[in-house]
Amino acid sequence: MKKTCVGTCLINELHRRGVRHVFGIPGDYILGFYDLLARSALQHVGTTSEGTAGFAADAYARVRGLGAACVTYCVGGFNLMNATAEAYAEKSPLVIISGAPGIKEREKDPLLHHRVREFTTQKEIFEKITVASVLLDDPETAPAQIRRVLNAAETHKRPVYIELPRDMTLREVRPVSTATGSDHPSSDRGALAEALSESLEMINQSRHPVILADVEMHRFGLQHALVTLAEKTNIPVAATFLGKSVFSEVHPLYLGVYEGALGHEEVREAVEDSDCLLMLGCFLTDINMGIGTSKLDLGNTLYATSEKIMVRHHRYDGILLEDFIHGLLRARLRKRPMPDILHPNHNGTLPFQASRRITTQRLFALINDRLQDDTVVIADVGDSLFGAVDLKIHRRTEFFSPAYYTSMGFGVPAALGAQLARPALRPLVLVGDGAFQMTGMELSTIAHRKLNPIVIVLDNQGYGTERFIQDGPFNDIPRWAYHEVTKVFGAGKGFAVCTEGDFVQAFQAAEAERHQFSLINVLLEKTDRSTAMDRFAKRLSRNAKTPKTR
Amino acid sequence: MKKTCVGTCLINELHRRGVRHVFGIPGDYILGFYDLLARSALQHVGTTSEGTAGFAADAYARVRGLGAACVTYCVGGFNLMNATAEAYAEKSPLVIISGAPGIKEREKDPLLHHRVREFTTQKEIFEKITVASVLLDDPETAPAQIRRVLNAAETHKRPVYIELPRDMTLREVRPVSTATGSDHPSSDRGALAEALSESLEMINQSRHPVILADVEMHRFGLQHALVTLAEKTNIPVAATFLGKSVFSEVHPLYLGVYEGALGHEEVREAVEDSDCLLMLGCFLTDINMGIGTSKLDLGNTLYATSEKIMVRHHRYDGILLEDFIHGLLRARLRKRPMPDILHPNHNGTLPFQASRRITTQRLFALINDRLQDDTVVIADVGDSLFGAVDLKIHRRTEFFSPAYYTSMGFGVPAALGAQLARPALRPLVLVGDGAFQMTGMELSTIAHRKLNPIVIVLDNQGYGTERFIQDGPFNDIPRWAYHEVTKVFGAGKGFAVCTEGDFVQAFQAAEAERHQFSLINVLLEKTDRSTAMDRFAKRLSRNAKTPKTR
Repeated sequence: MKKTCVGTCLINELHRRGVRHVFGIPGDYILGFYDLLARSALQHVGTTSEGTAGFAADAYARVRGLGAACVTYCVGGFNLMNATAEAYAEKSPLVIISGAPGIKEREKDPLLHHRVREFTTQKEIFEKITVASVLLDDPETAPAQIRRVLNAAETHKRPVYIELPRDMTLREVRPVSTATGSDHPSSDRGALAEALSESLEMINQSRHPVILADVEMHRFGLQHALVTLAEKTNIPVAATFLGKSVFSEVHPLYLGVYEGALGHEEVREAVEDSDCLLMLGCFLTDINMGIGTSKLDLGNTLYATSEKIMVRHHRYDGILLEDFIHGLLRARLRKRPMPDILHPNHNGTLPFQASRRITTQRLFALINDRLQDDTVVIADVGDSLFGAVDLKIHRRTEFFSPAYYTSMGFGVPAALGAQLARPALRPLVLVGDGAFQMTGMELSTIAHRKLNPIVIVLDNQGYGTERFIQDGPFNDIPRWAYHEVTKVFGAGKGFAVCTEGDFVQAFQAAEAERHQFSLINVLLEKTDRSTAMDRFAKRLSRNAKTPKTR
Repeated sequence: MKKTCVGTCLINELHRRGVRHVFGIPGDYILGFYDLLARSALQHVGTTSEGTAGFAADAYARVRGLGAACVTYCVGGFNLMNATAEAYAEKSPLVIISGAPGIKEREKDPLLHHRVREFTTQKEIFEKITVASVLLDDPETAPAQIRRVLNAAETHKRPVYIELPRDMTLREVRPVSTATGSDHPSSDRGALAEALSESLEMINQSRHPVILADVEMHRFGLQHALVTLAEKTNIPVAATFLGKSVFSEVHPLYLGVYEGALGHEEVREAVEDSDCLLMLGCFLTDINMGIGTSKLDLGNTLYATSEKIMVRHHRYDGILLEDFIHGLLRARLRKRPMPDILHPNHNGTLPFQASRRITTQRLFALINDRLQDDTVVIADVGDSLFGAVDLKIHRRTEFFSPAYYTSMGFGVPAALGAQLARPALRPLVLVGDGAFQMTGMELSTIAHRKLNPIVIVLDNQGYGTERFIQDGPFNDIPRWAYHEVTKVFGAGKGFAVCTEGDFVQAFQAAEAERHQFSLINVLLEKTDRSTAMDRFAKRLSRNAKTPKTR
């Protein structure tokens, strides 16, 4: 086997696991590794900042199963904290690679540039928001350590941290076999058999079983199994907000997005009245559960995630989610008659009128009519997310959003990551004005790479969600001519629209623009919002209010 | 005394200590506090992102003695990590205020939006890069805790972290006296007397004493004392890179910036040949010490910082820097004859030629001729920093840069913070193209507030410093028409210049523009650099190279 070095070993391991792009910004402690990258089969994708590199790599990881961001020590690493936290919260296997001062350089404890406190401070901090981490300070153990950490990312679908001291990058390592498998975890067979037998009985005896599917079904590659399970049994499927599009939204067994009492009544009823609710890969987050408005009875629930399996009120440990789901597929579940599912039109019945001032609600209705099979919808937070709930996503997991962590600024950089991860997809980005001001200039990289997302900026002149919780001058932001960013990049097509007619025209022009991005700046009234946002903000507002006195 | 609540108590304490502006972005966990802010004597300054709020607040703290950034939980807090790390590394008293889920809400350990791991995770992380932190979970102790934490920021000139659960914001607190002082630390009198007596003897017996002043003299408000000390004794003063402008650069006793063998020979000689070097408030960082090229003999050195006092090879603890400096002022130091200091022209002797293609070296020479008394120079990193070393700053501390932590992107947001902190100053921002792409859109807030900095973008098409260390395609970045950002904001004056004549004309126009920002996009050759950068990058490059084999 060919001799290699620590840096190349890391590159090879990433490549073997499907990574083809690494996002980030160079700096002197990581330049040696960047040099190796430039001569490898991985492509470096330079971004405008480390923060956006993190979001792009997170989206890439969601689409492709693993994503990587690579930066320099501290000044780079700390800018990745928010994206890493997001990946932790929403289970995305993001690999953080940080350069660092050489082990030799650290000996006399000098104040090297970028250092903050101790040389170990950055690693200690990342340990708190990753599932595994390593300082590659020994070429002897580096190959095994790299493998351990990357395995952890893939097993837990959560971020990991790799610190590469610059004097280790080119250190020779012993050739290692590329075989894997031995360290792949397995289920407790007894527990699995018992849980499956109980579940089988519970499902078969129920009259109105319903599946509530969430994002882990996507992360663990179980979407096809989910379709098979539904079709084998004719059990209808609802999705959570975070899991939206994990099951095709045009499938005849699809119920809709469940959001407790904040969502649509027919979905709430089906889920909450079910006598056997299969919650598959679900996160019980506040937003998923309709901000405290969901009423689920554990006594009627099968709850299966990568962390535990619960049958009604009792818990099984040591069962892998994938083994449980595949076990259900093999079990003798009875096939029911095709259910009769109502799909009311939630996008309103207002007919198109070219000269009408555009509203958020109408904007989503118009977008909905124009979704294509190759569209991946990426929603930033606020009304971009809440309003997007009624978009009908055609295929599986063509909707991405940070619907639990809800960090502003995910949208545009995520489009970069998603389209590089799967070039056949065309991103449609929904992003508020506030979020665009945070990270929208990442369109620079999108322009440079001639990617062609359509970015729709919902300009309601400030932090719209917050206006409904507690308004004040702090929710206003300066208005930008967002469509003019094309002048800064010398690329892209910009549109500013006020009416339905303008929007449709701009959207058609954007669709025809195959070799560059388009940005449609939708000028909304300051207090305009979707009906979904209205429900959410009212409820969030209740929780935000605090009593004045003890 | 008037009854008050936890939030107002925090606002009052900040106000009492001189804070008038709070930078940040609202979010639902902090909205209650924002509402109090809006009705207080503090002004909220909304920024485009939390990261830039952090840089602005850091600069504000450097100018004013205390600065604050206020954000929501996790999605806001983690975006402040890099600025907080910078403030820690370079001793800036930055106060981080983060909203958080209410204490009551945490009871059943729910997955509330923005949560990452444990509810305590964010605080545990900030503990690692701050000198004090608190979770305000008890109205009884909140006033004392707020005071303790803010005292720590002012005493150590380092960042602190305050977490405010939203259900605590309006909780009533007992009135507290506004008296302070009792918790102000004091020096060990015996140690102080002994150290001063030793120092007095050492200085008076020396033949060529020299002061090397660094940034702590600024942070601890000792600049006036420094001038008095120099003028009382006629001891010449050099500054470090990080401390540049701590002593007026047009003062007859000023030697120049010391950078080991990387700086100017006459300064190196004066400092290194001194038989009594007074290193006052110095950080021994790699950049300050000329990347390992400095040759200082501890046996000839008095080293005084806020952390320790060293007289030659022995150390004193328990002495406050300010007590030591004021002690020296009172001591019977002998006055020497006025030294004869050479001030060669380091900006070159090339005459202005309008049609000549502009270079970095000439750019700095032309800027140097145009510095005003009210100019505060803010240098981002790279050649913006290295090249700025020969700018002659007129008054005291009108030069700010992250010359130790060296995070890209400090420049533009720092101009916002600095000009709000002291409106009489007019910032001149030197920023590279890479750094501008990170945070330059913060000009939005500058435009909105009608501030008038002059921003000079040194566009050399990529990460210039790194090109000299290890070049590759990763150092190239897409070119922006930086001067066109004015079209996005609908404000500001933009210029693109190629020649010396264009630059001078644009600079004059910018100077005349008193009510909005100006941006001068200086189009440089890709490989152009200042001579200072050349020396630094060569040396940094040596350290970055690592041997290929064991």
